[in-house]
Amino acid sequence: MVEVRPLGMFDSGIGGLTVLDAISRRVPRESIVYFGDTARLPYGTKSKETVTRFSQEIVRFLMTKNPKLIVVACNTASAYSLPVIRSMVDIPVVGVVEPGAEAALRVTRNNKIGVIGTRATIQSGAYLEAVQSRKPEAKVFSKACPLFVPLIEEGWVDHPVTLEVAQHYLEHLAACEVDALILGCTHYPLLKGVLEQVVRPGVVLVDSAEETAREVKEVLSGKGMLASSLIGPQAELYVSDMHLNLRLQIERFLGFAVPRIKVVNSEFEEVELQGI
Amino acid sequence: MVEVRPLGMFDSGIGGLTVLDAISRRVPRESIVYFGDTARLPYGTKSKETVTRFSQEIVRFLMTKNPKLIVVACNTASAYSLPVIRSMVDIPVVGVVEPGAEAALRVTRNNKIGVIGTRATIQSGAYLEAVQSRKPEAKVFSKACPLFVPLIEEGWVDHPVTLEVAQHYLEHLAACEVDALILGCTHYPLLKGVLEQVVRPGVVLVDSAEETAREVKEVLSGKGMLASSLIGPQAELYVSDMHLNLRLQIERFLGFAVPRIKVVNSEFEEVELQGI
Repeated sequence: MVEVRPLGMFDSGIGGLTVLDAISRRVPRESIVYFGDTARLPYGTKSKETVTRFSQEIVRFLMTKNPKLIVVACNTASAYSLPVIRSMVDIPVVGVVEPGAEAALRVTRNNKIGVIGTRATIQSGAYLEAVQSRKPEAKVFSKACPLFVPLIEEGWVDHPVTLEVAQHYLEHLAACEVDALILGCTHYPLLKGVLEQVVRPGVVLVDSAEETAREVKEVLSGKGMLASSLIGPQAELYVSDMHLNLRLQIERFLGFAVPRIKVVNSEFEEVELQGI
Repeated sequence: MVEVRPLGMFDSGIGGLTVLDAISRRVPRESIVYFGDTARLPYGTKSKETVTRFSQEIVRFLMTKNPKLIVVACNTASAYSLPVIRSMVDIPVVGVVEPGAEAALRVTRNNKIGVIGTRATIQSGAYLEAVQSRKPEAKVFSKACPLFVPLIEEGWVDHPVTLEVAQHYLEHLAACEVDALILGCTHYPLLKGVLEQVVRPGVVLVDSAEETAREVKEVLSGKGMLASSLIGPQAELYVSDMHLNLRLQIERFLGFAVPRIKVVNSEFEEVELQGI
């Protein structure tokens, strides 16, 4: 019997399900173990040290599932903690920042790239570095948009207030004449409708989920690790807290209902929570 | 030498500093140890089980400081976890929900009381219970306002968007003709200016910080535990994460700069974080 080694993925919460969705469409035979740190989210307002410590704890948990590859499906954790995570494990680790930067470089015509994300992602400078290490003459204009995640979690993805907030945040980037805008947070693809109303015509919105999925396939393929088994693929979904509206939000991100969500405590032991 | 036993306080973050501020003005001789769980905030979107577990961990930490009284300066933790916390310790525990309910009952003339708070606080029904156990004929109308905390943390306390969000949230409460509105979250006193523009004239905004401070003084005085020492009072401020804009936010809440903030890790051991 062939041993099925899953892909391990994590995010501060469930925004990374946009990446899971893209991966499961691109490599549909792979099994996936996903961890959302819903007890401690968000990461985007917290320090590098704390985000790195949380990431290390989660990677240690994922490693108990014997994964063949780790996807850091969180921009903040990718921006802050990728080197530390790569030093912890001897399997490939794919973040979302580098694929997003590469995709933006492919679509830009004037080499002016915008990046929006959490305060932590923007202050880390990770996208700037990823873009300019590949193309030093490219210019990066970035803007932290801390209200986007709360607005999305409130379900206001097409609310007039969200449009107004987006206009406020993107005013400066528009003046910089960027022609590619990296959605540097896994929640943001849900705001595409609003963002398209705010950016100038012709600006390409770069969703790192698709690019990350492409990168995952390339790495697996390059190492001869693509699943060939006839055993049906599985997705296991772990969260550190099952809060009031989480199931609803999960369905909003995935577009379909998840049959069973497992909850773990701070020691990463599975627990039963009431009322779920 | 008289042993100085401090007051122990905690909140999910630093919003509880509005309560610390009120207490330190009402009982200025008391020393205070404050813990803000900035690594795991917010609590208001998380489950009862998780909020209670976090609260228990923090109370165990505070108890190592030998406090004479615990103040749960967080509406969500007060709403979800007060009975569990009271069962853990043999010192008085004061939450913010009961003082807020009592204050609202003192000021209402038509017995129609509005409550705004986090989703968790509102869904807990704690204010409804606290009001109706004291005055069964009083009516409580409540509304979760999940965007207020992110707007405040973005510094948009008098931004047009915040006014629009407040109008949206409070529309229903206005129609219910409440004449007292409980600010059921320690962040909300910073929105008083905006809220006053949105509520009907004559509606009293009830800030539980002041009421909680009054309750703390009453309990201490009733038990003969008020500090009489001539040793100058001290405030110790602990947080579980020192993130990018925290010092700025702390000054916004307190109105003055804090000389030294101590940071603890997940085992509640003091650590040094870079770049603070």
